[in-house]
Amino acid sequence: MSKTNPGRFFEDYTVGQVIRHAVPRTVAEGERALYHALYPARHALYSSDDFAADCGLEGSPLDDLIAFHIVFGKTVPDISLNAVANLGYADGRWLRPVYAGDTLRSESEVIGLKQNSNGKSGVVWVRTRGINQVGETVLEYVRWVMVRKRDVDAAAPDTVIPDLPKAVAATDLVVPESLNFSEYDTELAGEPHLWGDYQIGEKIDHVDGVTIEEAEHMLATRLWQNTAKVHFDATNRDDGKRLIYGGHVISMARALSFNGLANAQMIVALNGGAHANPCFAGDTVRAWSEVLDKAETAAPGVGALRLRLVATKGDSSDFPLKAEDGKYLPQVLLDLDYWALMPM
Amino acid sequence: MSKTNPGRFFEDYTVGQVIRHAVPRTVAEGERALYHALYPARHALYSSDDFAADCGLEGSPLDDLIAFHIVFGKTVPDISLNAVANLGYADGRWLRPVYAGDTLRSESEVIGLKQNSNGKSGVVWVRTRGINQVGETVLEYVRWVMVRKRDVDAAAPDTVIPDLPKAVAATDLVVPESLNFSEYDTELAGEPHLWGDYQIGEKIDHVDGVTIEEAEHMLATRLWQNTAKVHFDATNRDDGKRLIYGGHVISMARALSFNGLANAQMIVALNGGAHANPCFAGDTVRAWSEVLDKAETAAPGVGALRLRLVATKGDSSDFPLKAEDGKYLPQVLLDLDYWALMPM
Amino acid sequence: MSKTNPGRFFEDYTVGQVIRHAVPRTVAEGERALYHALYPARHALYSSDDFAADCGLEGSPLDDLIAFHIVFGKTVPDISLNAVANLGYADGRWLRPVYAGDTLRSESEVIGLKQNSNGKSGVVWVRTRGINQVGETVLEYVRWVMVRKRDVDAAAPDTVIPDLPKAVAATDLVVPESLNFSEYDTELAGEPHLWGDYQIGEKIDHVDGVTIEEAEHMLATRLWQNTAKVHFDATNRDDGKRLIYGGHVISMARALSFNGLANAQMIVALNGGAHANPCFAGDTVRAWSEVLDKAETAAPGVGALRLRLVATKGDSSDFPLKAEDGKYLPQVLLDLDYWALMPM
Repeated sequence: MSKTNPGRFFEDYTVGQVIRHAVPRTVAEGERALYHALYPARHALYSSDDFAADCGLEGSPLDDLIAFHIVFGKTVPDISLNAVANLGYADGRWLRPVYAGDTLRSESEVIGLKQNSNGKSGVVWVRTRGINQVGETVLEYVRWVMVRKRDVDAAAPDTVIPDLPKAVAATDLVVPESLNFSEYDTELAGEPHLWGDYQIGEKIDHVDGVTIEEAEHMLATRLWQNTAKVHFDATNRDDGKRLIYGGHVISMARALSFNGLANAQMIVALNGGAHANPCFAGDTVRAWSEVLDKAETAAPGVGALRLRLVATKGDSSDFPLKAEDGKYLPQVLLDLDYWALMPM
Repeated sequence: MSKTNPGRFFEDYTVGQVIRHAVPRTVAEGERALYHALYPARHALYSSDDFAADCGLEGSPLDDLIAFHIVFGKTVPDISLNAVANLGYADGRWLRPVYAGDTLRSESEVIGLKQNSNGKSGVVWVRTRGINQVGETVLEYVRWVMVRKRDVDAAAPDTVIPDLPKAVAATDLVVPESLNFSEYDTELAGEPHLWGDYQIGEKIDHVDGVTIEEAEHMLATRLWQNTAKVHFDATNRDDGKRLIYGGHVISMARALSFNGLANAQMIVALNGGAHANPCFAGDTVRAWSEVLDKAETAAPGVGALRLRLVATKGDSSDFPLKAEDGKYLPQVLLDLDYWALMPM
Repeated sequence: MSKTNPGRFFEDYTVGQVIRHAVPRTVAEGERALYHALYPARHALYSSDDFAADCGLEGSPLDDLIAFHIVFGKTVPDISLNAVANLGYADGRWLRPVYAGDTLRSESEVIGLKQNSNGKSGVVWVRTRGINQVGETVLEYVRWVMVRKRDVDAAAPDTVIPDLPKAVAATDLVVPESLNFSEYDTELAGEPHLWGDYQIGEKIDHVDGVTIEEAEHMLATRLWQNTAKVHFDATNRDDGKRLIYGGHVISMARALSFNGLANAQMIVALNGGAHANPCFAGDTVRAWSEVLDKAETAAPGVGALRLRLVATKGDSSDFPLKAEDGKYLPQVLLDLDYWALMPM
């Protein structure tokens, strides 16, 4: 009997099941430095303790996407080892910042199941929570994946499709306690454009591009303890390519978006997202954003922008997204929908 | 007169000589994060302060192999700069965990010498100790290398061959003070298999593979301040290849062994090891293990497994090791023999 | 109206203008570990808290070049985004060590302007200061760059050429408070050669070479938050090459200089420097040094050496520098002139 992890198959999931994922992780200054080495991250709140203190925080938190990647990575052995496809995200919220010294673990609840008509696989919806060392939820989101069945003759479960919001409502956004942008220093932050300067429908080409190397995406993906073999093993595909973890593209695009959105400091919600096409080493990633919505918050000087973040592997200056048939253009890597906090 | 280090030659060693190696090193959270970026390391004791505290430790130690690599790296300029071959390891023991903030230095005592019959080189045995900032030995091991003579006419020393154990006796293993596995959480650790579930002779294929990049092994080897030029200088060999530090393969294989040995938490002894074949960038490293022995310890809930860890650059599912002539198969990179602690 | 940063053009600078650069940065153990992974850095003062304490410091500072790269990186969006060439450095001094936990920001004062005779560009001189969280200057240097004009018809400014020293005078060197080399341990430092052993005019070939990978220089350059696109975007040049940040070559050469200058512990002044030829991935970097001057200091046991540090991408054993026509040889990457502190 093999002692290695075969992963879970579609028939191993039941609605209401809670999976406590393995390998809790203490994060510290090392993860922070590596994040800045892996991505051209420059948002001041995540770069300087002093800048963060001037915004009312106890210090500079770890990048919101570090929390996301770590929480996500822990779910891979239980949720997506036998996944055929990562289908979507919804209803994601960051509930409190993560600081150096915090320990994170993940837990997922199965909230939906639907067997495919071919009887060979099905869709599993999970709500995943990232939990810190004192039991507080720091982050939660829904993800759904298509998972193979171990036994095609296994009975189909009752279909349960969760009711998910198209976007997190502005009133449901959680602004970190004590966050205060009333003394915000735009000069140190790097750009003068504030919440009032952005219009719904406005598009911003972030101009810069980064050509990705194998060593970089593997360092990142391992750091988040995501062990999906497609990211590491060049013998896994006939073409010898390693598929880059979709989260690497998210972080790269978010960091590139500094140029034009330097004041979109904190990510507070993940409304949805699609990894439109695979990314491979050698691709040069660029990004553009579109302002989808705007909202005020109760915190002093803090507004919220709902943004579409698109990563491409070619030119981004003409805002490529979908073809006339509604399918993503081949150069589009990522289409992400999130809320960020910005000084008003 | 050149001021650069020419390294020591065979005739520069005498039995009983103690060499205090240069460049002490303070290790911290940065080394810990980099270790997790470089290797798919997931053993929970080295990942989470909380998990480690639940096992009786003051916090999550740095990976045992970080200590080994740092202590080893410091010996290179004095021991192996003019080495023709790294012949073996024996009698290695980890005596206390290394925590962020500790400062390590290395010291080696020459314990054996034997000139080769060709008169051009000889074998040098050293016992190396890693010593922390308060003078405690954290790690010790014996290594022997074949070293060139500067002057072939130099007189041969008296032959002294140290008496080395084939394996560290179970009764000589040092369990870290206060380690306690009686409340061990297998769910958070990632696998249910405990000490009682492993049988002597059992083999485990660890399934996963990682394709190695030049940037990665160089980052690792530099981090351990191992400056042997063969690892860094592509002009050093006619084929333009850089030889990967053997310790990089050890760490990669150990991390891969999580899948099947997730509860083999702490390395406490190095019984022996051979770098069977060279490893180069582009190789996809896999690993398999064999249970060689089992022992109980006096610590609560703590058992010990003696394990063979084999790294290969091809398929590992048929447990490749040696050919009929007793020589290592060409795809075998590493054959390591160590003791690990596992909950009972 | 684009919200992305177009950079400043020649006519945007005026003498006396002070630019407060964006994105302050808190540095910690992560940056320290990454520095040691990226470069073969072995100077003991920057490796061990204990060694540094024995030299009178409160702990091991971050490498002097980390401070330089971070301070420099912040100036790029304001100073060199539209630069045609980085022309030189002068009058650089390190004024106090940077420790883990410090937060750095940069400020530049325009101290000189000279429009080129072609009317299309001009030279801008800036004095840049790195400032810590309590407002102390940790580092300052002068740099001059050739910057394009936005509008060739813009009026030329009055020419102001600053008076810069050929080298920082020995009497202007700042020795860190409480630095004391009277109990200096040469064995732990790695070499016996002290200040008195070096002669003016002496040249040292540092022997070792490191072949550079794309992933490494991009990790480094991002870590210093230097976002100049030429370093990251392979589609930026017709030949598909990414130009390596000149500071990566400085750090690599300085680290290689350990072998022969292990006791040249602290960099205290940057007298000048030229990036003689571009460096690309695949180049194998070597280094040689020349002793240009010597001076005593008032601190116990502390002497100063003025050194030329030359990086090459070929053989360094014959000390390549310039051709008969006075131009740098094609294999020379860097010609740097600095002062370092060394035990007497």
